[in-house]
Amino acid sequence: MADLARLSINQATTQAQYGLAEAIAAYSNADVAGISIWRDKLAECGLDKAVRMLADRGLRVSGLCRGGMFPGADAAARQANIDDNLLAIDEAVALGAACVVLVCGGIPEGSKDLAGTREMIRDGLGAILPHARAAGVPLAIEPLHPMYAADRCSINTLGQALDLCDQLDGCHGADLGVAVDVYHLWWDPDLQAQIERAGERVLAFHVCDWLVPTTDLLLDRGMMGDGVINIRQIRDWVDATGYDGLIEVEIFSAQNWWKRPGDEVINTCRKRFLETV
Amino acid sequence: MADLARLSINQATTQAQYGLAEAIAAYSNADVAGISIWRDKLAECGLDKAVRMLADRGLRVSGLCRGGMFPGADAAARQANIDDNLLAIDEAVALGAACVVLVCGGIPEGSKDLAGTREMIRDGLGAILPHARAAGVPLAIEPLHPMYAADRCSINTLGQALDLCDQLDGCHGADLGVAVDVYHLWWDPDLQAQIERAGERVLAFHVCDWLVPTTDLLLDRGMMGDGVINIRQIRDWVDATGYDGLIEVEIFSAQNWWKRPGDEVINTCRKRFLETV
Repeated sequence: MADLARLSINQATTQAQYGLAEAIAAYSNADVAGISIWRDKLAECGLDKAVRMLADRGLRVSGLCRGGMFPGADAAARQANIDDNLLAIDEAVALGAACVVLVCGGIPEGSKDLAGTREMIRDGLGAILPHARAAGVPLAIEPLHPMYAADRCSINTLGQALDLCDQLDGCHGADLGVAVDVYHLWWDPDLQAQIERAGERVLAFHVCDWLVPTTDLLLDRGMMGDGVINIRQIRDWVDATGYDGLIEVEIFSAQNWWKRPGDEVINTCRKRFLETV
Repeated sequence: MADLARLSINQATTQAQYGLAEAIAAYSNADVAGISIWRDKLAECGLDKAVRMLADRGLRVSGLCRGGMFPGADAAARQANIDDNLLAIDEAVALGAACVVLVCGGIPEGSKDLAGTREMIRDGLGAILPHARAAGVPLAIEPLHPMYAADRCSINTLGQALDLCDQLDGCHGADLGVAVDVYHLWWDPDLQAQIERAGERVLAFHVCDWLVPTTDLLLDRGMMGDGVINIRQIRDWVDATGYDGLIEVEIFSAQNWWKRPGDEVINTCRKRFLETV
């Protein structure tokens, strides 16, 4: 059963309502245990101020969003992407984040080379992994739903993400692991087996719901309980791996939750977390 | 390389422009070799008239859309779905269709039981397969993109469809097979291996393109060449199975192709078929 001591809210859930400082204050006032931070919001707030506020409020950081986006049209573009990931790793150290969440990137503009895109992702991961190891921050590959394969992330199943982990991090425990997000993975007939395979590589667990109908590919995620995902079943599979970190609510909802008062969103997250996660 | 003698157009591609009689006339006037027929359009036209027109025009039928939709809230609903599939098989016989295309159906309203939905699909397939065998019409399971797992089809990868074929039709050649649609499957890292595995179970091959951005989950498919799918590569994999049937263009496009004159759509299909398929 869900325990509020494990509730984290990804600040994208209240991205329209709050900057980072406001989100830290609002979440901790509501006794939420953790936050996942977006780098654009972090830049607006300032790293030092964020670190101070997190310490003052005792709020844990379930992840830094996001690294990744490795593919690029040429070597210079790919190196710039790598450099940005190295910076994200340093920010994650300062924040004490449990992991850097990697949205690995899609097919470069003008290309139809999906296999080549996946090679760029593998190479980018390989290039940043040593710095992450040295910094002591694990990297969490987040497989994204196949509807994002073209433009956001060409890693689209948990099995594919774990193949990359095995290839790049075979001997190193879980310096490289995965973020399991029910929204992206719930449909996969192989999900239970792949979560079991993941074991200690589960570095993050994200929840929301799949609405019927879904009216937008990006910004129509549902609050837990409002859709068709059997979240508790997936939670049971994740629990069986031994994962005992924060469980993160991440809802992109332009027409619904982003239009409501922030405290209503937070309170609904708390309530639904207890009821459905 | 593409050969216009293998071009079929799924009438959904011109669903806003033509009824079935008009589509048969327009396609055959443009020297298109085949058509895939939708049952709602067939009912409007009348089966006898359609059969006569197809014979007069020498147009082949690459598939009848659609059977499937097996899940239901109770046994009576599921039996009604089975009965409707039996009727579709009889219609396919009359039309001389190469296969009945099965869109297997999604999770019944109010349920979150994805595994149970998949069992209903398996049981529904098992219930109609004897009639299809007796009638001599193969059944083509069409795995649909995972974004349709909730509401249209909970069979979402080619591997999953082939597992069903093995389970239900292990000894029977390809009475039960698959429709390979690039739109639904292009993202799958296991696609090449699964097409090879499919072999003679490939009963249909559908093409269109994945647009970036895609603005609607259902009705924003692209014309071949306008998106990111390497269609010719997938075509090569399908060719290697020995499949030499019709290749079907199927484009749902409410904001673009459905708004253009039917002859422009058909001529563009012909041109792009030669250039990209």
